[in-house]
Amino acid sequence: MSLNSSNYTVSIDQDWRLYKQDIAGSIAHARMLAKQGIITPEESEAICKGLTSIRWEMEHAKFPWKPELEDIHMNIEDRLKDKIGPVAGKLHTARSRNDQVALDLRMYTKEVAHEAAKDIAKLQSTFLDQAESNSDLVMPGYTHLQRAQPILLSHHLLAYVEMLQRDRKRFLQCISAADVLPLGSGALAGVPYPLDRYFVAKELGFSRISANSMDAVADRDFLVEYQSACAICMMHLSRFAEELVLWSSQEFSFVTLDVRFTTGSSIMPQKRNPDFAELARGKTGRVYGHLMSILTNLKGLPLTYNRDLQENKVGLFDAADTLLSTLNVFIDMIATMTVNADKLSCALGEGNILATDLADYLVAKGLPFREAHTVMKQVTDYATSQHKQVNQLSLGEYKLFSDDFSTDVMDISLKGSVDARDVPGGTASVRVKEALNEARKRLEMDKHD
Amino acid sequence: MSLNSSNYTVSIDQDWRLYKQDIAGSIAHARMLAKQGIITPEESEAICKGLTSIRWEMEHAKFPWKPELEDIHMNIEDRLKDKIGPVAGKLHTARSRNDQVALDLRMYTKEVAHEAAKDIAKLQSTFLDQAESNSDLVMPGYTHLQRAQPILLSHHLLAYVEMLQRDRKRFLQCISAADVLPLGSGALAGVPYPLDRYFVAKELGFSRISANSMDAVADRDFLVEYQSACAICMMHLSRFAEELVLWSSQEFSFVTLDVRFTTGSSIMPQKRNPDFAELARGKTGRVYGHLMSILTNLKGLPLTYNRDLQENKVGLFDAADTLLSTLNVFIDMIATMTVNADKLSCALGEGNILATDLADYLVAKGLPFREAHTVMKQVTDYATSQHKQVNQLSLGEYKLFSDDFSTDVMDISLKGSVDARDVPGGTASVRVKEALNEARKRLEMDKHD
Amino acid sequence: MSLNSSNYTVSIDQDWRLYKQDIAGSIAHARMLAKQGIITPEESEAICKGLTSIRWEMEHAKFPWKPELEDIHMNIEDRLKDKIGPVAGKLHTARSRNDQVALDLRMYTKEVAHEAAKDIAKLQSTFLDQAESNSDLVMPGYTHLQRAQPILLSHHLLAYVEMLQRDRKRFLQCISAADVLPLGSGALAGVPYPLDRYFVAKELGFSRISANSMDAVADRDFLVEYQSACAICMMHLSRFAEELVLWSSQEFSFVTLDVRFTTGSSIMPQKRNPDFAELARGKTGRVYGHLMSILTNLKGLPLTYNRDLQENKVGLFDAADTLLSTLNVFIDMIATMTVNADKLSCALGEGNILATDLADYLVAKGLPFREAHTVMKQVTDYATSQHKQVNQLSLGEYKLFSDDFSTDVMDISLKGSVDARDVPGGTASVRVKEALNEARKRLEMDKHD
Amino acid sequence: MSLNSSNYTVSIDQDWRLYKQDIAGSIAHARMLAKQGIITPEESEAICKGLTSIRWEMEHAKFPWKPELEDIHMNIEDRLKDKIGPVAGKLHTARSRNDQVALDLRMYTKEVAHEAAKDIAKLQSTFLDQAESNSDLVMPGYTHLQRAQPILLSHHLLAYVEMLQRDRKRFLQCISAADVLPLGSGALAGVPYPLDRYFVAKELGFSRISANSMDAVADRDFLVEYQSACAICMMHLSRFAEELVLWSSQEFSFVTLDVRFTTGSSIMPQKRNPDFAELARGKTGRVYGHLMSILTNLKGLPLTYNRDLQENKVGLFDAADTLLSTLNVFIDMIATMTVNADKLSCALGEGNILATDLADYLVAKGLPFREAHTVMKQVTDYATSQHKQVNQLSLGEYKLFSDDFSTDVMDISLKGSVDARDVPGGTASVRVKEALNEARKRLEMDKHD
Repeated sequence: MSLNSSNYTVSIDQDWRLYKQDIAGSIAHARMLAKQGIITPEESEAICKGLTSIRWEMEHAKFPWKPELEDIHMNIEDRLKDKIGPVAGKLHTARSRNDQVALDLRMYTKEVAHEAAKDIAKLQSTFLDQAESNSDLVMPGYTHLQRAQPILLSHHLLAYVEMLQRDRKRFLQCISAADVLPLGSGALAGVPYPLDRYFVAKELGFSRISANSMDAVADRDFLVEYQSACAICMMHLSRFAEELVLWSSQEFSFVTLDVRFTTGSSIMPQKRNPDFAELARGKTGRVYGHLMSILTNLKGLPLTYNRDLQENKVGLFDAADTLLSTLNVFIDMIATMTVNADKLSCALGEGNILATDLADYLVAKGLPFREAHTVMKQVTDYATSQHKQVNQLSLGEYKLFSDDFSTDVMDISLKGSVDARDVPGGTASVRVKEALNEARKRLEMDKHD
Repeated sequence: MSLNSSNYTVSIDQDWRLYKQDIAGSIAHARMLAKQGIITPEESEAICKGLTSIRWEMEHAKFPWKPELEDIHMNIEDRLKDKIGPVAGKLHTARSRNDQVALDLRMYTKEVAHEAAKDIAKLQSTFLDQAESNSDLVMPGYTHLQRAQPILLSHHLLAYVEMLQRDRKRFLQCISAADVLPLGSGALAGVPYPLDRYFVAKELGFSRISANSMDAVADRDFLVEYQSACAICMMHLSRFAEELVLWSSQEFSFVTLDVRFTTGSSIMPQKRNPDFAELARGKTGRVYGHLMSILTNLKGLPLTYNRDLQENKVGLFDAADTLLSTLNVFIDMIATMTVNADKLSCALGEGNILATDLADYLVAKGLPFREAHTVMKQVTDYATSQHKQVNQLSLGEYKLFSDDFSTDVMDISLKGSVDARDVPGGTASVRVKEALNEARKRLEMDKHD
Repeated sequence: MSLNSSNYTVSIDQDWRLYKQDIAGSIAHARMLAKQGIITPEESEAICKGLTSIRWEMEHAKFPWKPELEDIHMNIEDRLKDKIGPVAGKLHTARSRNDQVALDLRMYTKEVAHEAAKDIAKLQSTFLDQAESNSDLVMPGYTHLQRAQPILLSHHLLAYVEMLQRDRKRFLQCISAADVLPLGSGALAGVPYPLDRYFVAKELGFSRISANSMDAVADRDFLVEYQSACAICMMHLSRFAEELVLWSSQEFSFVTLDVRFTTGSSIMPQKRNPDFAELARGKTGRVYGHLMSILTNLKGLPLTYNRDLQENKVGLFDAADTLLSTLNVFIDMIATMTVNADKLSCALGEGNILATDLADYLVAKGLPFREAHTVMKQVTDYATSQHKQVNQLSLGEYKLFSDDFSTDVMDISLKGSVDARDVPGGTASVRVKEALNEARKRLEMDKHD
Repeated sequence: MSLNSSNYTVSIDQDWRLYKQDIAGSIAHARMLAKQGIITPEESEAICKGLTSIRWEMEHAKFPWKPELEDIHMNIEDRLKDKIGPVAGKLHTARSRNDQVALDLRMYTKEVAHEAAKDIAKLQSTFLDQAESNSDLVMPGYTHLQRAQPILLSHHLLAYVEMLQRDRKRFLQCISAADVLPLGSGALAGVPYPLDRYFVAKELGFSRISANSMDAVADRDFLVEYQSACAICMMHLSRFAEELVLWSSQEFSFVTLDVRFTTGSSIMPQKRNPDFAELARGKTGRVYGHLMSILTNLKGLPLTYNRDLQENKVGLFDAADTLLSTLNVFIDMIATMTVNADKLSCALGEGNILATDLADYLVAKGLPFREAHTVMKQVTDYATSQHKQVNQLSLGEYKLFSDDFSTDVMDISLKGSVDARDVPGGTASVRVKEALNEARKRLEMDKHD
């Protein structure tokens, strides 16, 4: 048999990462077996001591890994036998690899989902800090990448705080989805021993136990949910990454990224490229791919456990690593970016960005909105032909298009436009300030979750 | 310009399906405008009456659709003008297409997610009925598509009730995710009118309003979550579909599908193919594709609204149609399928399905599980060489492999094996009965959601 | 049974589009049956006449479609019986639905792949025309969306001609992949009649016949290849769509799209949004989704035909429609776009775009490239501190950083930079002109394919 | 900055795998620079010697890797400077990281595509060997996983030879797509040096050079094509994997896999699970995921090089590893599998598998096929009611349903049914033998490619 096929079933290069979960699960299981009189207290103690020392070995790079044992479970099991002899075999009473691996994955998923939620909160904080530091800056708001209406930069940044809030909620839902103890389901049918599954659940911090043993060993929904939450969160980050790439182009120049988050060119001496933002954008595809991978993997699998399921570990670890490292990059990159106020201001001087306000002005004078819109289209065309912005015309010029214009039309201003959007969720300074405070309070409260 | 490009932006063939939501949203908006004194009560009444009559026309196939108006919004707007004249234009005060379409999509998503949750509950009921009707049937439980241990068919069916329970929960989370009123966000920045957004939310049955106008028009998370929930649910259905295809093969013959859910062959007169199950399995790819489509669509889009978003409607409608029709097919198909008890029984007579029970027997006699497992591997090989099942050997034969075997080994039976798995979630009759009752109660309670 | 489940197997709303292929295939089959003496010439003639009149009915909206007959094949079969009586049944001698549908799909795929190849050639022509009209325009070339080096706009446009050339090749490979006659494979095993499969192949324009009947009815590789080719082509179009969105933003303003390819805003009177480009970008996700859908569909299907395969039609038709309409939009949109030479020129005045040329200058004087690069980094920093571009410094200033600078450094210019890249594939005017001619010739030659 | 963000741009853990390609490319580049007089022969020689010794270090685990240098290119560049001093810097004349990495990826892709093609040929050989060893075995052919018609097992296996033939062709197309030298394109615009690109192409075994420098650094089509070819090939393997899982179930028992390709259960002593086949099926999702990942990655990227592209390496390496190891597993697993002739024979005794032959018999007697089909449906129902197969009835019984039956109906047999399918591509023994020889010849000829 060739080298390739002999490695085919090996997963230890991936699943060594589950060692902590696997050992914790085994200790809880051993304790319960003793408590229920299935093994003796001495046997349980020997097992637990052996496992604890294995964990120590692993954490201090003293563990004699054996790839030929294929996975983390067999490596631990084999080492335990070395250490405590045949009693090690009793650990596997009333347990199967099928419920054991489901346990490890659930514990791991809870941990990385929890970490994601925490890092997302930090990133929200960073966005809030930037929003606060730049609370009065007006910039063009865009639709279709065309300048649309003036908005506050802080309002723009708060949009991401909202996206991230949903992301955080989704990761909390993931934790809840994973928070079900599968141990006690055996290979598929349950086990013929008087287990106390609630005891094990409590020991390991699970709030529920699985209701059906066949489902428990076949179910990977919690992984799909986790991958889906990662994909959506990366999508949000890719949107801001795109904006950073745009904003740090010479054409926009809205922000300058800290030098640690740009790299030079091997050939063009003048360049500072936003590589971190580009990589984050690119890594989005990677996380999408993992979601597609696990969905494909699970499609059409008959009950219960099938070895196909082993393949979902790679994607789990990589999605977790990718998301968490991207969140951490964003936290630093956004905290250290500088906003170029003068460039925002320049950009507001073009694009007839006050045209909607002029239309709303006409509505206030009694025109139906659709008519006001039509008038303003004509005004815009006229202004363009005069090489002016719509808000730079004289009253006389306005009156060419509608008699409803009067002196107060000259009061329309960028700041006025912003502050006029004084509805809940709008860009008016007072609303944005409120929203910022609200978001801070929410973050504070969530800390106690 | 060729025909193709002139159709390129048209979406009316798809989004006519949003007419109900669009009209309801417009009526609520008009009422609020009047309540806030932005338009007069008479104007509001004219608008609402006009819209109501448009809805009537649409529901009675009397509406003069104009494809050249491209979308549902313009079709309604244009028709309203026909009916009530220029006052129709006032409806668009303080509203943009951007927040309007977000509203329609949220209302639609809430509806189809609600419908999915209801149909899932019905399908759970059907599974429970089948489990109840066949509550004592023992069958082989499988891992790796190999016979593993005896289980109750009802236990197997209840595994799907659990999967569907999670699906139901996910659709309820979708409803909650979509349950945010975006109206009042305008094009992106909010609107310069004193709106009462809470009033509109209440009229339309929303429990929250959006907190940031830019996020509100750019956000499609609720659609991704919905697509993800559909994909996971279809994955579950594809797993049962696969089992139905297997179980209705001549090799398994575990079930016979009602003739309405099989089709004949145009060439082979003897055939009854499980086409509905196959189609369900095949449609899974379709729903996965829509999830990938929307994630790709949203990747890297800068704020706020971009026309790309229009493309997500097709997938939404098709995923909803596909899921709901599949659920309904399953409800009928499973309700009417016949279980072939004799075939289940035959299948239990092979595969040494009691080998684990014999190992557990040795554990009860004091052997560590790993040793008992080794003994039973030898017993199995021996039995095979004798053309017998492991549970058909004589006591003398057993004793060739271990002295721990004694007379009571002859008591090991299929039913005994099943009932020995007497842990929460296990396949013991008493546990399955409990689980069934529990599931019924849960369903009953959820009805009042 | 509910409405939903009764519709579940119906595909006529989709597969009516195969009517032309289905009828052509049947006529060829009937002729062959007669030629081989399996049916009589009179029977064959009756069948062919019947089929021809059915096609006429379909093309003149006179065909009595019956949805209850589920698919295009049964609609035609049933109608033929109406028209010519029981002899209609003889058409189905030596043929199964399984090889029939494979035939129809292969004929359809060949057609739409051929159409794609033709439209791609037209789009290449359009790019070449624009390149020619703007052959001397220098603009900034970008990496990482940062200005990198001066290039010719025509060189940039020719990059797309190359991408499209690969697309065209891929569609030709698709045609070849689909160009295999499956008819004669029967349901799966071949048929017990002395067919002349080569005759049918010739009648229908196939150059090969399938070599294995089981593969022939189970194989959909040609569809996956087609979906993959569509996905890659849409990816290319999405890249140019992105550039059009960027280039028509106020920040870039490099091009102005014809008014037919932008749309206004319902709320902001001043706006011209590049909706067609955005839609093209968004539709990319749709086509990716179809690729994922068919791959998921086919995963793990045992031989031979399974009903799952029916589900691949929707994606086929939609991918074809989406790609072809997008190509046609691009042909017009690019032909009519205006390049704003002054804006390109402005953009070249910033970003130290000649820094690499200055480094290459130092290399020519004998410095290793890495050292020259380091010098130029210092020069760039200095120039920035003086609010100048690197090519605006005085000789004295240059000499602060290296003695290798001498008077001829002042000769470095944008045009000079461009023309210095005088390698095959480079942006030098003479090379671009050559490339343009080469591409024209290639297009001309490919016409005779 | 946290640990995470400092690692974010590092790719050396992945791209060290490109060392061979990178060094070969550099040597060819250095030689050409000397040949063109851009550097001196002595400089070139020093560079080439240094690079050769670096390769030796790498292949003998003596290379001092520096993760802080981030990628393979900088590790080599830095080490070269250590070895030969500042002249090392001259290697980077007329070359950019952008064209260099494109070169490495193209060389790598050509190699792994070539390896795939070779391994596929081996797998075809294995299928042919099994087909030959079992050339007379009749088994049920399936559609919809229902027994349909008798076929030869060898015919079934040859279906996979055809699929793999297409796979092989696709990998050859991948090689051709990758077979374009990008070096000489510089960062994006070409380089200002008189390069001989054809010389480099020849040195490195490329048959073409890139026609447009901007396209050359931005293009990753060849990777998408490769991922697509991998996905389709894995799809084929997943289909056979599914069949192996089915065929080695107790219900089918058609084959026994060699013990090296099954694994036992940690809890159920009697089990032999087809883990390798399951893993292959599961890994299909992984490869699909990579395809989706790269398509997402490339969507909407403006020209030219963007750092997002770095992310496509992980998927490339993993797809290559996964495909090649799966092919190798299959080669051994199929070569060593045992066919259980008796089980095939049993399976033929059920399912009325000769019903189509009886219908064809009636057609030969003059009935239109549709009528014969109807008669045989009645015969099948009757036989079932008598607990017989359709081919076990007496002549008298047949005549109850049609007078066209006469004595020769009793001659219909499994072997006769098979051999009657005597059309090109059919399952008749003589046809299958021909097909087998044809396939052998094709393989032999392709060796000389």
